[in-house]
Amino acid sequence: MSQPFEAFLAQSRQQVDNALTENLPSPDQAGADRRLFEAMHYSTINGGKRLRPVLVYAAAASIAEDKVAQDILDRIACAVECIHAYSLVHDDLPAMDDDDLRRGQPTCHIAFDEATAVLAGDALQGQAFELLSTLDTLTPHTQLDLVRTLAQASGAQGMVGGQAIDLASVDKQLTLDALQTMHNKKTGALIKASVLMGAIATQSATAVQLQALSTYADAIGLAFQVQDDILDVIADTATLGKRQGADEALNKPTYVSLLGLEGAQAKTQELHQQAIKALENFGEGADLLRQLSAYIVERGH
Amino acid sequence: MSQPFEAFLAQSRQQVDNALTENLPSPDQAGADRRLFEAMHYSTINGGKRLRPVLVYAAAASIAEDKVAQDILDRIACAVECIHAYSLVHDDLPAMDDDDLRRGQPTCHIAFDEATAVLAGDALQGQAFELLSTLDTLTPHTQLDLVRTLAQASGAQGMVGGQAIDLASVDKQLTLDALQTMHNKKTGALIKASVLMGAIATQSATAVQLQALSTYADAIGLAFQVQDDILDVIADTATLGKRQGADEALNKPTYVSLLGLEGAQAKTQELHQQAIKALENFGEGADLLRQLSAYIVERGH
Repeated sequence: MSQPFEAFLAQSRQQVDNALTENLPSPDQAGADRRLFEAMHYSTINGGKRLRPVLVYAAAASIAEDKVAQDILDRIACAVECIHAYSLVHDDLPAMDDDDLRRGQPTCHIAFDEATAVLAGDALQGQAFELLSTLDTLTPHTQLDLVRTLAQASGAQGMVGGQAIDLASVDKQLTLDALQTMHNKKTGALIKASVLMGAIATQSATAVQLQALSTYADAIGLAFQVQDDILDVIADTATLGKRQGADEALNKPTYVSLLGLEGAQAKTQELHQQAIKALENFGEGADLLRQLSAYIVERGH
Repeated sequence: MSQPFEAFLAQSRQQVDNALTENLPSPDQAGADRRLFEAMHYSTINGGKRLRPVLVYAAAASIAEDKVAQDILDRIACAVECIHAYSLVHDDLPAMDDDDLRRGQPTCHIAFDEATAVLAGDALQGQAFELLSTLDTLTPHTQLDLVRTLAQASGAQGMVGGQAIDLASVDKQLTLDALQTMHNKKTGALIKASVLMGAIATQSATAVQLQALSTYADAIGLAFQVQDDILDVIADTATLGKRQGADEALNKPTYVSLLGLEGAQAKTQELHQQAIKALENFGEGADLLRQLSAYIVERGH
């Protein structure tokens, strides 16, 4: 990977970390809600890949370099990451996936307690919408567009709906179509929202551009999940920071179980090509998005 | 209580029930996310008092009778009730208050399962913001104002923050001030948001009117909680639909434990007078709000 792309990734991660620290309630004050704020901080400042924030920045650049104030993009990136973090905190709960470790660190309910983890997730979700409704230098129309895009992607018809389908799929034989529907909602919807929100923030994306970005996002969102299934089989626990083969152990259907390892790897390449094609009418500004697609299907190799 | 007020309460409850059924994902379809949708429906269509929706309707009437389309108010009432319902579903979880019954019915995690209850709460929160961002006949500015008001009231600095303080208060001796701060956030913030959102929806409330409604809402929000503490001591399980003296059993501080029963009853009357005074410059349109204040301090007697 080229140096500028690596530098872009590192800088994006730094920016969203700084912005999360600035925009979430400070864990350094003395009130009785301090433990909640600490858990929110712990669950978001965690050395994650920050794929979704990175997509926000890259999508904005694909439409118009420097047309959006950096602090606006930072807060949008924060909002998206708050939604992602809340879903992980709740997903790790004993009643859900019952995971003790994430990225090699104790999960929120282990580091704190279950009640605090429930509340921290709840508060992170609310924080996302609060952030998007206070981007005062954008028009109300644009702010509302951002709120709507994130709410639809993360709610009952999006991410949470996908998690519900995932729960209902344990010990079931899913068709490839059904598996794809589940992942489109569970992971794909928020990835797509991240791309669209970066573009919406420029206040200058055309309907045609948004449609192309939508096609791009569908492809990389699915590629991300197929690659996740591949890594779950081939990577060891140290690299992943979670139990290897965890999905298999839960009898969850995966792309590898349905397509075989080679079939799944071919699928990621096919999706990568679809993503690149979707951007064919975009100029150099979309190079970051192109590189991100390659990054997604190459990660962990 | 006068007949028109009772009729207003009954009609408001019917409207928000209908609107919830219309605006939440239908539990009657056959997908794998059906169980999630059933749990969302179960947790919202529950014979509750609907105080917050009723406040939305009454506050709108206090500013401008018939200036807001009924379906807009219905969807705002829905959004507020979705937030309230999600907080109850999560609050009842074993890791939180561990309640099996609410209003005499099995709580969500008993009727379904814990994982579904976590997800149903998450989805209900998202649904609230989705609803508020699709009120297309209001200006984007007003929709955004509604989103911001609800997000700030329900998040880390509002309702969820109050729940965190509540958790931290078990087995602690709280001062009256600390107890009040906790309740202001835990219950008061969403009650106040309901009142303000009804007024905001008219798109004609002045800053002075909003300030007066804010003072009114602070008073009734606190009165509601003091009355709750009183009822928790004097009512029996059948009337309340939950275990009598539950807060006392958890060693949570209450207004009754701090002020005594008579002191707490005097406090509700004082708060009711404050609420009435806050509305002194409002005309007959505010009669529903006035009656609601009386209703809050008289309920359960």
